Amino acid sequence: MAGLDKNESELWDAWKGAAEKVRGKVRGKVAADITAKTGLSDPDFGVLTRLVELGDGKLRQSDLARSMGWHRSRLSHHLTRMEQRELLRRRDSPDGGVEVEVTSAGRSAAVAARPVHAAAVRRHLIEPLSGRERDSLRAILDHLSDPN
Amino acid sequence: MAGLDKNESELWDAWKGAAEKVRGKVRGKVAADITAKTGLSDPDFGVLTRLVELGDGKLRQSDLARSMGWHRSRLSHHLTRMEQRELLRRRDSPDGGVEVEVTSAGRSAAVAARPVHAAAVRRHLIEPLSGRERDSLRAILDHLSDPN
Repeated sequence: MAGLDKNESELWDAWKGAAEKVRGKVRGKVAADITAKTGLSDPDFGVLTRLVELGDGKLRQSDLARSMGWHRSRLSHHLTRMEQRELLRRRDSPDGGVEVEVTSAGRSAAVAARPVHAAAVRRHLIEPLSGRERDSLRAILDHLSDPN
Repeated sequence: MAGLDKNESELWDAWKGAAEKVRGKVRGKVAADITAKTGLSDPDFGVLTRLVELGDGKLRQSDLARSMGWHRSRLSHHLTRMEQRELLRRRDSPDGGVEVEVTSAGRSAAVAARPVHAAAVRRHLIEPLSGRERDSLRAILDHLSDPN
């Protein structure tokens, strides 16, 4: 079987380029603005939003590692530093494993970060598109996300 | 400013989900098939295709690092291992810096990898879409990739 033809290759390059650009701009913008406002790094923000949004304030450390796509030991080192800054606390879970819980300082920082994140998503994904393009993109993405 | 509303948030989640799914499936499938056929890892494949496609066989090590999005020292360690396997060679460049050049074994491996990569891109990005969806996705992605 041959490589991609010109049309296929251009679609793939356009896909990779846009995906990386949107991801990079949103993360970069969020990271810079959040650090300026709250002192959180991009991984701090990732941890805190997962605790608040997925776990209603707490998650098992193993579930958090899976959701971040991080190795256990990398996450563990990072959580130790966040614990020292009183953004979260850890305790042994009654059913084994470790539970990670956001503190009120961690929750405030996550809440302060949310509008900065929203502004970056709007600027780099939503506002460049017309209403019709948004609808059409949504339908295409749902299509691509079907299990296959 | 508030967080994202429901529609905005759904578009953002659909975007992240599809981007990660396509990227993960293509990389995962390519990585597994290529390793089985040629012994190349995913980063090996990334290095060799850049040398062959961007540099016509050779690139400055600093340009390769930028293109991979890797830190200099990580790339340098990786290239040392690839050099030991005779997939590439390095030499001091006359204008300073280091030049990385693919060997004929490295080029053969990259060529063998190409159709595997093409099959994965077709299966996960191109074939799930109708012709009209492909055209429309291409236009939307070009729009998102405009500098702004």
